[in-house]
Amino acid sequence: MKPFNLLIEELKKLKSGLFEKDFLLTWDKTEDELRQTLLVAEALKHLRDNNISAKVFDSGLAISNFRDNSTRTRFSFASACNLLGLEVQDLDETKSQIAHGETVRETANMISFLTDVIGIRDDMFLGEGHTYMKEVGDALDDGFKHGVLPQRPGIVNLQCDIDHPTQSMADLLHLVNYYGGLENLKGKKIAMTWAYSPSYGKPLSVPQGIIGLMTRFGMEVDLAYPEGYTLIPEVVEMAGKQAAASGGKFRVVNSMDEAFASADIVYPKSWAPFAVMQQRTQLLKSSDKEGLKALEQQCLANNARFKDWECTEEKMKLTRDGKALYMHCLPADISDVSCKEGEVAASVFERYRIETYKEAGYKPYIIAAMILNNKFSNAAEVLESLYNAGKKRVV
Amino acid sequence: MKPFNLLIEELKKLKSGLFEKDFLLTWDKTEDELRQTLLVAEALKHLRDNNISAKVFDSGLAISNFRDNSTRTRFSFASACNLLGLEVQDLDETKSQIAHGETVRETANMISFLTDVIGIRDDMFLGEGHTYMKEVGDALDDGFKHGVLPQRPGIVNLQCDIDHPTQSMADLLHLVNYYGGLENLKGKKIAMTWAYSPSYGKPLSVPQGIIGLMTRFGMEVDLAYPEGYTLIPEVVEMAGKQAAASGGKFRVVNSMDEAFASADIVYPKSWAPFAVMQQRTQLLKSSDKEGLKALEQQCLANNARFKDWECTEEKMKLTRDGKALYMHCLPADISDVSCKEGEVAASVFERYRIETYKEAGYKPYIIAAMILNNKFSNAAEVLESLYNAGKKRVV
Amino acid sequence: MKPFNLLIEELKKLKSGLFEKDFLLTWDKTEDELRQTLLVAEALKHLRDNNISAKVFDSGLAISNFRDNSTRTRFSFASACNLLGLEVQDLDETKSQIAHGETVRETANMISFLTDVIGIRDDMFLGEGHTYMKEVGDALDDGFKHGVLPQRPGIVNLQCDIDHPTQSMADLLHLVNYYGGLENLKGKKIAMTWAYSPSYGKPLSVPQGIIGLMTRFGMEVDLAYPEGYTLIPEVVEMAGKQAAASGGKFRVVNSMDEAFASADIVYPKSWAPFAVMQQRTQLLKSSDKEGLKALEQQCLANNARFKDWECTEEKMKLTRDGKALYMHCLPADISDVSCKEGEVAASVFERYRIETYKEAGYKPYIIAAMILNNKFSNAAEVLESLYNAGKKRVV
Repeated sequence: MKPFNLLIEELKKLKSGLFEKDFLLTWDKTEDELRQTLLVAEALKHLRDNNISAKVFDSGLAISNFRDNSTRTRFSFASACNLLGLEVQDLDETKSQIAHGETVRETANMISFLTDVIGIRDDMFLGEGHTYMKEVGDALDDGFKHGVLPQRPGIVNLQCDIDHPTQSMADLLHLVNYYGGLENLKGKKIAMTWAYSPSYGKPLSVPQGIIGLMTRFGMEVDLAYPEGYTLIPEVVEMAGKQAAASGGKFRVVNSMDEAFASADIVYPKSWAPFAVMQQRTQLLKSSDKEGLKALEQQCLANNARFKDWECTEEKMKLTRDGKALYMHCLPADISDVSCKEGEVAASVFERYRIETYKEAGYKPYIIAAMILNNKFSNAAEVLESLYNAGKKRVV
Repeated sequence: MKPFNLLIEELKKLKSGLFEKDFLLTWDKTEDELRQTLLVAEALKHLRDNNISAKVFDSGLAISNFRDNSTRTRFSFASACNLLGLEVQDLDETKSQIAHGETVRETANMISFLTDVIGIRDDMFLGEGHTYMKEVGDALDDGFKHGVLPQRPGIVNLQCDIDHPTQSMADLLHLVNYYGGLENLKGKKIAMTWAYSPSYGKPLSVPQGIIGLMTRFGMEVDLAYPEGYTLIPEVVEMAGKQAAASGGKFRVVNSMDEAFASADIVYPKSWAPFAVMQQRTQLLKSSDKEGLKALEQQCLANNARFKDWECTEEKMKLTRDGKALYMHCLPADISDVSCKEGEVAASVFERYRIETYKEAGYKPYIIAAMILNNKFSNAAEVLESLYNAGKKRVV
Repeated sequence: MKPFNLLIEELKKLKSGLFEKDFLLTWDKTEDELRQTLLVAEALKHLRDNNISAKVFDSGLAISNFRDNSTRTRFSFASACNLLGLEVQDLDETKSQIAHGETVRETANMISFLTDVIGIRDDMFLGEGHTYMKEVGDALDDGFKHGVLPQRPGIVNLQCDIDHPTQSMADLLHLVNYYGGLENLKGKKIAMTWAYSPSYGKPLSVPQGIIGLMTRFGMEVDLAYPEGYTLIPEVVEMAGKQAAASGGKFRVVNSMDEAFASADIVYPKSWAPFAVMQQRTQLLKSSDKEGLKALEQQCLANNARFKDWECTEEKMKLTRDGKALYMHCLPADISDVSCKEGEVAASVFERYRIETYKEAGYKPYIIAAMILNNKFSNAAEVLESLYNAGKKRVV
């Protein structure tokens, strides 16, 4: 990692409009803004690693609104907020009256009177999560404009139906540190590929997030999946345009081997086909349990035709010098460990296990950076003054 | 809002016995004590709005004990505690061993060793909530007296079967700011009136809280409901006496129109008849599911006879200059929005929506004021020294 | 309680290896380490009682992982962490993805990136809880060694299948203060005895914790139970060896009267026989509901043969001068109060009720001491500097 003063120097050169803007999709952010997020994350990690307090809030709430299960993102969000001095309060929609017909608009304001940030996970329904986050944002704008809220809480997307920016940015920061700099990613080949899993209904946001982000930095991005396992078409199209603009490459292939060939990085991960997710969303909305069961059976049967889409030792040999970096958002479906047949062979996973843990370890800092950039127009100065104050985190 | 130094000046003139006293019912408090609560709330809001830290606790727990669902009060309590420096811990009676026969006396002590405040919502059973809070209070007195507890945690009533003081006090503070002073409420007419809702079993504590508080300040209070939808008789009787003592008026009418006539403020809200709540309490206690279903059907059928008890544009025209302030504790049952036919017409609600949000926005500060007054004998001095220290909440 | 400076003086004389070591079993700790835990707990209580801040962390997470219900330990852990400046985050395994096949190794790392301490309760399955805690510890060692974690979170055993050290150490601190010093416990007789309860399946960790700890300090420890109600044999054997080594006594008897005879302290509490717990563990693992029901019936029927194992006034007369100190980890099964026939007569319990509350009141400080000793190699210096800084907890 770079020395602290270099991080600050780089930060000061960037032009950024992150202040007071929600972080919903990486492709809504400029390259400078993405760089700023990485640099602030690194600087915060530097402070923490050197026992320097990063508390910029004396008090204030951070609300987590998980509409789907989560362990690692939940704890990453809690860690990030605590690092900065905010106290997490969970908006648990089963405990609250939200289920009884409250509108999003009202609730968004009711929970925000003394709130600085809201983290939302809503990834179950195609066409819903991102829309919900924008709706919450509009409600907060409305409340702030009319003097209901003394501050406009920032929103951090903790995974929606389209993107998973805290994951993809943590992945990117991992690559930056693994290869010694963002500039070193230029020309590197990454294979974002479907892999077999004995479960179904896994969201599309991770593969979409990866192709939507890694095409920004001149990388060669291969998206691979068995025929039919497509992602949201607009995201795939955009990835192609971004690759062209950044001097990189992007292609879609229907062969894991092709994607693995000479890859520097592989990201084998299961997801459900776009068409299935659309059907599933309709069935969930209409609470059609029979239909859901039938769809699950049909989808699992289809998955089973592609059990050879597994990241095995043989497949790894196809990659550059047989030594591609293996990545995963975790938890992975590990063959003979977490399931009989899965996304990755046990020996491959075990060899890269610590690396995947480190990959995950950037997420708290990425989230904290997103919050800090949202709440402060002058991140570099704030970080510098924390560094100079040198208040110990632990006495 | 008044300048900070004027708030402090006024505060210093008041005689108050709030120190170390639980806040359970507004009618147990003197007029000076209610004024003090309002002033401290305003002063705390002033500090927060000006980015000045109001942290008077370096550490300490605040326990929330919600025996019924809640979103807004839950977040208001969390916000208030966080503002003052206390960390909220939820006493979740499903997770704990309380269900297995522990006595209230023991539990109250077990959770209080390092606890400064306990917020309780218990509004389901008539005759139970207020009694439970007093029982907890007695247990804490006992523990403190015998050296079990190093401090006596204060109790804040977050809604019981009789009163909802954090709601009614927030409502009052809203009126104070809307009309430019508590003295300006003298002679204003407020219509606390039943309204139709397609649900049943809504507690009586909001209307009781409103008539129990607004009759203290010389207002003209009309309580209106369809025949049979009575409140707890003792509370209604007390409201009449208070109105007489404060130079105001109080009457009960069975017509929404009559209550709305020339009203400055209207508060249309559904509740279940006192007699139904008594039956319901018995049925809940005996876990009589069939009986509960039958009662619900009967009660809903009865409600349906009064669908014209809706706050429509026509009804609003009856009020003073057709411009009465609409109030609600939220969430409201809005016709054609949250239900087909409800308490209020969509256009009326929408016109006052932002005002109802502001109304709700006072609750965190009211709760914080109740805590501060309970824990400090010299609120004015504490607030002054926070102001003078001028520690920033956000760097 | 001793003056603060004497506590510090004594502390400085001790040799201790508690730094960076998990606190899982009291019998893994040296006598000096146990003394250090008591002294630090007392010093922390002294600071709190004198309104001096004990915040040694500016930020940081403390994770609670309760795999069984808890009220008092949950709040004790939260209080301890808050006292030191850590924010509690609950690892709720029903909310998280843990149930879906994640390995302990991975989860332990995923929740620990910015975590200073993890408190675990896992007491349901014989042979499981302690093993789980060591597994978590190994995972954290692994993550820390490989640079995944910037710190190694300490683990505090909040009750496992073998020991309940935060309970037994709080019990010991209660005795120290009751008798005016650890040295005064030498030769005192304590009766740890089974008692009748109309429930079954209560864990063995409390009686095991008591005989495993009290035999360290020269006490005369009687373990009494009806034939068949044995504890884990290895723990009982170890207790005997420890008693011999410390100049105390240890014996197992099958008569409550014999144990109570001339006892200074009595600890009557129900538990399930070791053999039943073994069967129960197997049935729970295989989700054999019929088998569990049958076992429960059989066990309750067997319990019912020993209803005379109740701590009555008559039994109390057998103790030294009829005035033995009654102890319990709470909640007790009190005859005619929490059940028809139980562990203790109502009048006996009521006489000692406040003492049992005080006993429980030491637990937050014991937990805080375990954390402080784990995270700081120089507890005495840390405490001294807190004392000298004299920062007020409440302004």
